[in-house]
Amino acid sequence: MQHFTKAEIRHIEDRYQDFLKVIKNKFDEGRLARIEKAFRFSNAAHHGIKRKSGEPFIIHPIAVARIVAVDLGLGATSIVAALLHDVVEDTDYRLSDIENMFGTRVSRIVDGLTKLSGDFDAKHALTLKKMLMTLSDDVRVILIKIADRLHNMRTLDSMPAHKKIKIAGETLFLYVPLAHRLGLHAIKSDLEDLSFKHKHPEEYEQIQYLLHNQEEKRNYLVNEFTSPIIDKLKEEGIDCKVEHRLKTSYSIWQKMQKKAVAFNEVYDILAIRIIINSKKGISEKRQCFDVLSIVTDIYKPKPDRIRDWITMPKANGYESLHVTVMGPQGHWVEIQIRTDRMDDVAEHGFAAHYRYKDIRNFENELDPWIERIRELLQSSDSDAFEFLDDFKLNLFSSEINVFTPKGDMFSLPLGSTVIDFAYEIHTELGNKCIGAKINTKLVPISHILENGDQIEILTSENQSPKLEWLKFSASPKARGKIKNVFRLEKNKHTDRGKEIIEELFKKINAPFTSNNLKKLTAHYNLNNKEQLYSEVGMGFLELDDVKDIIGKKSESKLVKYWNITFGSGSKNKEKEETPENQKIDKKKPFLLRENQDNIKFSLAKCCNPIPGEPVVGYLSTDDHVIIHKVKCRELEKFIANQGEKIIQAEWTKFKRQSYLTRLHLQGFDRLGIVNEVTTLISKGHNINMRSVKFETHDGIFMGDLFLYIHNTNDLDNLISKLKTIKGIDSVNRVENLED
Amino acid sequence: MQHFTKAEIRHIEDRYQDFLKVIKNKFDEGRLARIEKAFRFSNAAHHGIKRKSGEPFIIHPIAVARIVAVDLGLGATSIVAALLHDVVEDTDYRLSDIENMFGTRVSRIVDGLTKLSGDFDAKHALTLKKMLMTLSDDVRVILIKIADRLHNMRTLDSMPAHKKIKIAGETLFLYVPLAHRLGLHAIKSDLEDLSFKHKHPEEYEQIQYLLHNQEEKRNYLVNEFTSPIIDKLKEEGIDCKVEHRLKTSYSIWQKMQKKAVAFNEVYDILAIRIIINSKKGISEKRQCFDVLSIVTDIYKPKPDRIRDWITMPKANGYESLHVTVMGPQGHWVEIQIRTDRMDDVAEHGFAAHYRYKDIRNFENELDPWIERIRELLQSSDSDAFEFLDDFKLNLFSSEINVFTPKGDMFSLPLGSTVIDFAYEIHTELGNKCIGAKINTKLVPISHILENGDQIEILTSENQSPKLEWLKFSASPKARGKIKNVFRLEKNKHTDRGKEIIEELFKKINAPFTSNNLKKLTAHYNLNNKEQLYSEVGMGFLELDDVKDIIGKKSESKLVKYWNITFGSGSKNKEKEETPENQKIDKKKPFLLRENQDNIKFSLAKCCNPIPGEPVVGYLSTDDHVIIHKVKCRELEKFIANQGEKIIQAEWTKFKRQSYLTRLHLQGFDRLGIVNEVTTLISKGHNINMRSVKFETHDGIFMGDLFLYIHNTNDLDNLISKLKTIKGIDSVNRVENLED
Repeated sequence: MQHFTKAEIRHIEDRYQDFLKVIKNKFDEGRLARIEKAFRFSNAAHHGIKRKSGEPFIIHPIAVARIVAVDLGLGATSIVAALLHDVVEDTDYRLSDIENMFGTRVSRIVDGLTKLSGDFDAKHALTLKKMLMTLSDDVRVILIKIADRLHNMRTLDSMPAHKKIKIAGETLFLYVPLAHRLGLHAIKSDLEDLSFKHKHPEEYEQIQYLLHNQEEKRNYLVNEFTSPIIDKLKEEGIDCKVEHRLKTSYSIWQKMQKKAVAFNEVYDILAIRIIINSKKGISEKRQCFDVLSIVTDIYKPKPDRIRDWITMPKANGYESLHVTVMGPQGHWVEIQIRTDRMDDVAEHGFAAHYRYKDIRNFENELDPWIERIRELLQSSDSDAFEFLDDFKLNLFSSEINVFTPKGDMFSLPLGSTVIDFAYEIHTELGNKCIGAKINTKLVPISHILENGDQIEILTSENQSPKLEWLKFSASPKARGKIKNVFRLEKNKHTDRGKEIIEELFKKINAPFTSNNLKKLTAHYNLNNKEQLYSEVGMGFLELDDVKDIIGKKSESKLVKYWNITFGSGSKNKEKEETPENQKIDKKKPFLLRENQDNIKFSLAKCCNPIPGEPVVGYLSTDDHVIIHKVKCRELEKFIANQGEKIIQAEWTKFKRQSYLTRLHLQGFDRLGIVNEVTTLISKGHNINMRSVKFETHDGIFMGDLFLYIHNTNDLDNLISKLKTIKGIDSVNRVENLED
Repeated sequence: MQHFTKAEIRHIEDRYQDFLKVIKNKFDEGRLARIEKAFRFSNAAHHGIKRKSGEPFIIHPIAVARIVAVDLGLGATSIVAALLHDVVEDTDYRLSDIENMFGTRVSRIVDGLTKLSGDFDAKHALTLKKMLMTLSDDVRVILIKIADRLHNMRTLDSMPAHKKIKIAGETLFLYVPLAHRLGLHAIKSDLEDLSFKHKHPEEYEQIQYLLHNQEEKRNYLVNEFTSPIIDKLKEEGIDCKVEHRLKTSYSIWQKMQKKAVAFNEVYDILAIRIIINSKKGISEKRQCFDVLSIVTDIYKPKPDRIRDWITMPKANGYESLHVTVMGPQGHWVEIQIRTDRMDDVAEHGFAAHYRYKDIRNFENELDPWIERIRELLQSSDSDAFEFLDDFKLNLFSSEINVFTPKGDMFSLPLGSTVIDFAYEIHTELGNKCIGAKINTKLVPISHILENGDQIEILTSENQSPKLEWLKFSASPKARGKIKNVFRLEKNKHTDRGKEIIEELFKKINAPFTSNNLKKLTAHYNLNNKEQLYSEVGMGFLELDDVKDIIGKKSESKLVKYWNITFGSGSKNKEKEETPENQKIDKKKPFLLRENQDNIKFSLAKCCNPIPGEPVVGYLSTDDHVIIHKVKCRELEKFIANQGEKIIQAEWTKFKRQSYLTRLHLQGFDRLGIVNEVTTLISKGHNINMRSVKFETHDGIFMGDLFLYIHNTNDLDNLISKLKTIKGIDSVNRVENLED
């Protein structure tokens, strides 16, 4: 064991005292003594151990304890557990030692945390499953786990680049939705921006810069907007704070991506928040409505944009009254009206409920959710990957409230259809559903429900569940039920799939070897041959030219993704970062060359990267890397689930080979515009056009160009030239090459 | 002059005293003396004159004066004018006599009313124009005119049937929208139900019966729903009335027609109204929001269905806060929350504003509307018919509020498009408009705007107004501007149209006589040959086989309607009810026989009536009647505009001839359903199938049957048989035979 220097010991003590200063007024002597004891024990246990950054390890538990105490507002037991959370995992002490010294409550929490920790390179869906299972035992385990992750994200700088991407991706995929679901808004925002910073450093910096640049102007505008409100509220004797808040950099960036707009076009960067110091004796809701009434006297509200989350709080407990008004500068501005209690709950979620002693209420609200998760966990013998997919639906999406003919309300994920509603009410109702009536109108089973719909499910005795229902079912419950029906038939499909492939192999005189099967599995990006069989057997996967695929030396060019997978998942847990058979050094960026010899790479079909763009690699097999854009959405899933297979990648200069790329043009139709576009492209000697499609509707012109491009330089060049053509309003890259 | 009997004189005196009793507390002695003087003078002037009902005529002015005083809440001047309103028109007194006896203010109002009265068989669009022109002088003229119409509607029973239909149609078309626009909700509802009763007596009776039938149950439900609200409001010390109101029979019927649903499926027959006795010193709006807050604590509100017409009152001054909540019986119930003042304004419009002394406010609100009308009147040298069409858009439709990039708000009729907005801002902006951006999204010129949209108009110097813009422009202003541009070119079109027709006639060796032109004009249901020329010249009208048309003895079978008309309208004013060249006795129903000899009739293509349905006739030429369904929407326009051409019509038995009819089927697709439908039809020996169209989408089955049917009996029979087929959910007649 290495010993700490004096400076290090002083540093540890300083940090601990800082922490104590913050919390000491909140706890009595007995509790403070327990915290002290936990720190001293943990400090001794972690003595000599350092983090990657070179800091003493104990700094981490102290920081986590601080988040637990301050940001989450939890009590002494949680703080003690936070201080001890890595002891069993990382030192020679056992859980029984913890129990002997700190009692059962603490040891149970530490046990939960220990089970959740361990090798983060393993399948994270399993981690999630575990986390969710502990949820029903003690929600504090997850809260401390989130605090743990927050501190890890804050100290990510010292990690190597490929780890950063992996951890940031995992955070976005898992911890952000969880924090959201638990109503920890402040922590969620932090996690989001930290992940964004590490996953897309350039974009993060750029948005930070732009936000900073606008700060002075923004403050002026905020002041101009809020002054009349503040004056009027004062006049009316309403005691409140008027603040403003910004969207996180990550949400701004997401909106820019999703709507293909520039920073300046993201119109809801700013929101105004009015926090009422609520008077006792008057309903908080009425106090909020009073402010709404005053605010809309000053600024015109946007029709139908009053959102009352006080009467019907969001699933995560969020309460607030939102209204969007037209500001004096001609922009819509969202105003969030809430009391101090609601604000606390909105920012700190669970912890705030705890403070306001309506913990029971919150647990009541959480209960159906936990119940649903338990149901999902039990019903699904599906693989973790699949479970993750379905679970995310439940975790993150907005919700709608819909009603039965009797007026009972059900909450469903946004995008839910008639079949989701049917299964939500009863499995048999789902199985027999043939459609529904909404407001006397007949709608099909795939009809997307709207907030406030009242739905009468129509059934037929002859109906039975259909596999294609999975295409439009959005709720985990319905998906689980439908899949269950078909899982029973799975063996049949697997056998059938095997038969089909055997026949195919016979036809082309290829031996039915595991090597050949492996090539197929890799080609279609599947987990194993069982999955291959079942996908083929169920008709989800139609095989391309098999001769070509197994003829080539695993030189698969195209990767197909199938959203519906029934495989049982890969079971080999890779404990080592670099397995023996690994030919790639993960610590260095993988260089992409025009003439790659040793290790092959192919470009992912989901995002179609071209040379010059920021990319990462996914190790498909040990001699084959699939290249994804850094911002590829499909990739997120891989990062969270198979993070250990993600490697850094960098382009070298590409000149000879060219890549198919699609551009989408919009503008106003005028005579000769198509000709001008095509002429411009043919003039550029570096670009070849494969095809063009143009459409005009009511004078609006839409075009898709399919081009062979060498690299981003050439592409950027072309885009800026296209934009100068009169009538062209926007030119955007489209990642999907298919229609 | 005939003298009244003593009983009649006693009757007059009684009625007058009843009226006095109601008003005498409202006015001082001086005013009561003026009213007395007016009555005595009017009574003497109308002495001996009787109404169609046999009642002394003076009963009518007394009744109108009562409506003016009580329902409209107007002052002594208006009451005096109401009592005198028919003196100049119907007796030997002159306006100067009125002026000498009652002063300038009264005489001016009577003058306005006299100008508006006169022959109601003339074109009513002209009446409307006149009314609107007086609007800017003194709004009381129109208010008294509406009171006049209300009493006429109440005493319509003594009129012959064809007059009833005409007057009721005119009321629906003109007076109901006007009353709506002026915010006279109570009077509007009265006018609506009275018109409905006289125009569709059977349907009216049926709905009355159904409403009556449900009354007990309804009262029970209302009580169950409102009790918790009333209790809570009492507990909170809010002084208010909780009432319920029913949709008018006419709106119920309209909804049944429009949505093709049964009475029981009209789910918003009932609304709850909470009228607050507002406290002084607290903003009325806040008091309403307080009640909203309480109500939504009790019942779950429908998401996004809070309608705040207090912050932004409707164009007619209506203020109220609406919310739709889920009642304990599983039905959505609308709750209207308002103060006593708002309720008074909602029910009595202008008059209430008058009472609350914010008449100036109301006039300010009315001002832009009057300004807009004046603009419209000046800009349109179009014919009255066309003007009426455009004006109705402005009068009746719901409004949306949209915003410029600077945040300025504009109100436009519901359904307005980008081009409407462009013209609303500036004529040049409209003329050069090529599209717009809404929320950074590019939209075409025909894009329908939504409430709250912020619109950036995009222009091009090369743009010029297009005739097809009329297809999607919804605001009278834009329509006027576009038409103006083309009106300038009208002469050119007329000449071109004449040329085309001359050439055509030459080709088929037909003489270019006014008789032949008349046949064409009648065939296409146009007003005159000028209209024919311009329609043809502009390419709106493509001529069918002209040889056929002029070859036949004006036996036109089909009537086409063109929504866009540029004709200057027929100028001959028919003063006589039965012109000399009239072959039809309007007082008797026109009998429709299978072998009509003398006078031909054809079935209107807009509504395609079949034997057995309630119909009326429209005298196209003096020996040709076009038969419309009573409930035909196109017909409404004819009734209001050319009411003198409407005659009663009745079917005799039709057995030989059959008529094309279209049925629309909906249901769930299942094997063999199409076969069952077609078999069922072919079995019925009275019905021939011309064609069928079936479509299935996501398990929902849609079919259109085109059948030759003899009469409604056969049709009703078939429909009820079709409904028994398993899987069929609804069978509806479709009036439009084209897709």
